[in-house]
Amino acid sequence: MTDRVYKKIELTGSSDVSIEDAVQNAVTKASKTIRSMRWFEIIETRGYIDNNQVANWQVTIKIGFTLDDGSE
Amino acid sequence: MTDRVYKKIELTGSSDVSIEDAVQNAVTKASKTIRSMRWFEIIETRGYIDNNQVANWQVTIKIGFTLDDGSE
Amino acid sequence: MTDRVYKKIELTGSSDVSIEDAVQNAVTKASKTIRSMRWFEIIETRGYIDNNQVANWQVTIKIGFTLDDGSE
Amino acid sequence: MTDRVYKKIELTGSSDVSIEDAVQNAVTKASKTIRSMRWFEIIETRGYIDNNQVANWQVTIKIGFTLDDGSE
Amino acid sequence: MTDRVYKKIELTGSSDVSIEDAVQNAVTKASKTIRSMRWFEIIETRGYIDNNQVANWQVTIKIGFTLDDGSE
Amino acid sequence: MTDRVYKKIELTGSSDVSIEDAVQNAVTKASKTIRSMRWFEIIETRGYIDNNQVANWQVTIKIGFTLDDGSE
Amino acid sequence: MTDRVYKKIELTGSSDVSIEDAVQNAVTKASKTIRSMRWFEIIETRGYIDNNQVANWQVTIKIGFTLDDGSE
Amino acid sequence: MTDRVYKKIELTGSSDVSIEDAVQNAVTKASKTIRSMRWFEIIETRGYIDNNQVANWQVTIKIGFTLDDGSE
Amino acid sequence: MTDRVYKKIELTGSSDVSIEDAVQNAVTKASKTIRSMRWFEIIETRGYIDNNQVANWQVTIKIGFTLDDGSE
Amino acid sequence: MTDRVYKKIELTGSSDVSIEDAVQNAVTKASKTIRSMRWFEIIETRGYIDNNQVANWQVTIKIGFTLDDGSE
Amino acid sequence: MTDRVYKKIELTGSSDVSIEDAVQNAVTKASKTIRSMRWFEIIETRGYIDNNQVANWQVTIKIGFTLDDGSE
Amino acid sequence: MTDRVYKKIELTGSSDVSIEDAVQNAVTKASKTIRSMRWFEIIETRGYIDNNQVANWQVTIKIGFTLDDGSE
Repeated sequence: MTDRVYKKIELTGSSDVSIEDAVQNAVTKASKTIRSMRWFEIIETRGYIDNNQVANWQVTIKIGFTLDDGSE
Repeated sequence: MTDRVYKKIELTGSSDVSIEDAVQNAVTKASKTIRSMRWFEIIETRGYIDNNQVANWQVTIKIGFTLDDGSE
Repeated sequence: MTDRVYKKIELTGSSDVSIEDAVQNAVTKASKTIRSMRWFEIIETRGYIDNNQVANWQVTIKIGFTLDDGSE
Repeated sequence: MTDRVYKKIELTGSSDVSIEDAVQNAVTKASKTIRSMRWFEIIETRGYIDNNQVANWQVTIKIGFTLDDGSE
Repeated sequence: MTDRVYKKIELTGSSDVSIEDAVQNAVTKASKTIRSMRWFEIIETRGYIDNNQVANWQVTIKIGFTLDDGSE
Repeated sequence: MTDRVYKKIELTGSSDVSIEDAVQNAVTKASKTIRSMRWFEIIETRGYIDNNQVANWQVTIKIGFTLDDGSE
Repeated sequence: MTDRVYKKIELTGSSDVSIEDAVQNAVTKASKTIRSMRWFEIIETRGYIDNNQVANWQVTIKIGFTLDDGSE
Repeated sequence: MTDRVYKKIELTGSSDVSIEDAVQNAVTKASKTIRSMRWFEIIETRGYIDNNQVANWQVTIKIGFTLDDGSE
Repeated sequence: MTDRVYKKIELTGSSDVSIEDAVQNAVTKASKTIRSMRWFEIIETRGYIDNNQVANWQVTIKIGFTLDDGSE
Repeated sequence: MTDRVYKKIELTGSSDVSIEDAVQNAVTKASKTIRSMRWFEIIETRGYIDNNQVANWQVTIKIGFTLDDGSE
Repeated sequence: MTDRVYKKIELTGSSDVSIEDAVQNAVTKASKTIRSMRWFEIIETRGYIDNNQVANWQVTIKIGFTLDDGSE
Repeated sequence: MTDRVYKKIELTGSSDVSIEDAVQNAVTKASKTIRSMRWFEIIETRGYIDNNQVANWQVTIKIGFTLDDGSE
């Protein structure tokens, strides 16, 4: 194997629908500036309550991506 | 900003359906005695297994609410 | 299974005798205002030292109980 | 020593001034419904940023108090 | 109660669909060699990203089962 | 010293009597299939409450044993 | 609510005066390249000792900001 | 109150009898060189297994004592 | 991707030479009964001291392997 | 660089004024027996409550100092 | 001292040789875009296993650097 | 077994060469004032970066030694 180096950044994605959707929203937003995303890890799951309903899921993740160039 | 004070309580909600549903069940139950719930944080996700199937999701959350009065 | 909701509270029981006794003392005291206690988890074990002897065990536990009504 | 039992609750106090002031605000608010508060522990320190200034300190603490009666 | 003993093992289940599905996949696979599974706890949730989409949920759980015999 | 390798497994022992007894019960059960157990570490102490009494101590431990052969 | 995405970065601010001042110094420095900072969390508080006096407070924080554009 | 300063040291006591006895053994040994011990906290509980029996409880504690003089 | 399931086991490898060698020793020993090992994570690094020299590195790792069959 | 060795000790300083003052009080007391203190890290912040006021800040720190000689 | 601000980023370096080499590889890669790197902390050490051999060390570190300018 | 008591102290060793060498340096320095050192545990691994090279490994360990006498 080669000696690859990865960078990890921390994002909080949100969604009114589900935990999975909040993660995807964070990944989608990150894809606008980062190439070569490889994996994520969920760090924390929180949310807002509005009128006694879970109104917004907020999931903090770390995303790892190959540090091939000056991306980000 | 004013000097608001929030109280956090810890609940475990359960659901046969999903993690999100277990959280909502806890929030719904709490709404019977607490006003002004603002946010939650997932602390732990567990569940029961029955006949080799996940039979019940049990999600422990902390709920934060405004301590405006003697609620709870 | 039904969608039960549990509440967890944090107490510190103390005893001159043993860790087990300190836990029971906390449970006994809690039983005066809480119905339907189901389980506990030990969070921390500390104690006072007096004249080079362990003089008091102080055990912090979380107690989980069924949130069936407005108890507590 | 007698076998005292303490209860711990979790509050988030806020202040525009300092961490110490946010803690005192939480204690002051809690004093309206709880007697016999004895100690606190800082769990988390966060805050809001407004216009590039720390605008509000938010300090989450646990407060321990003697469970002598049905207070709270 | 009798003095039951439980064993806990650590598995990572994966799914293209959801966190809940990844847990069930781990439980299903474990059921081929383990009898009497009773509960699980989620330890970590990670995933792979492929072409800017969450392509695979990977959920690490601990499964507890009754140690009645030489199973596993 | 030689280059020994140890394996660690996680068990939950239970007892109506004490924390120490719950640990011994787990060790006794494990001894039916594992040779050469060397040490344990307590990971978590929980218990059930029945009729306001601690009815069952549940202690989760890791047991380390010499991996000399295909035991377990 | 819309599906906002936040990024969190980790900074260590320092100050000869106080913990609060070290946090503000980090926020002020970050404001030169980041727009839309929203909140911070204190991760760690350390400091240097010089001639038996606390000579410098060093506070590590995470700052969350709205990821609206390519800022940073 | 005065501005007292306490020092905390970390000891591992052992006993063939119980967790409580292992803690007392550590306190007793420490009393030979330290005055004014005030409290302890259990950090870790381990033990040795000999011939399928728990043969020795090893409890690591931190002991806090008043730093009134050059003791220790 | 397919819905693979992995199992993780915990081993402590030892070596008189280095941390890396202790990890390799654990992997080598595990290879005698486990097929398809994929990755490891270091959990803890300890060691024995003999005559003021580090005499033995003891590295606890988790090893993940594909659960394709009844191996182990 | 040379191969310096540092020792870390754990102290709890207290103050009626502020967190910063409690840290300085611990450092001042330590300076009576320790030379060459270099840095500190805050481990825990607690306090006593008296008559609904924070009456005493208690801050536990680790202090690192150069182990040049037999100091302490 | 002046009120310096540092930024910390998280990288995973890899190497077929050793843990130390994986850290250096991450530092070397980071040096292409970051000036004034000052220190690192190891967060996690993992690796791949290929044909029963540790084939690749993967070490996640945080790197701290002076935030003097718009570097990175 | 007898009821031995061990003390644990925390040291940070450094080395330009490797993690293992930094640990040995701490043990060597400690041996000048402590007899009967038995084991160590690595708590944290950090280091300095100089001119884009890892210039100094700094490894914090706890050393356990038999508390037979007034050593240290």
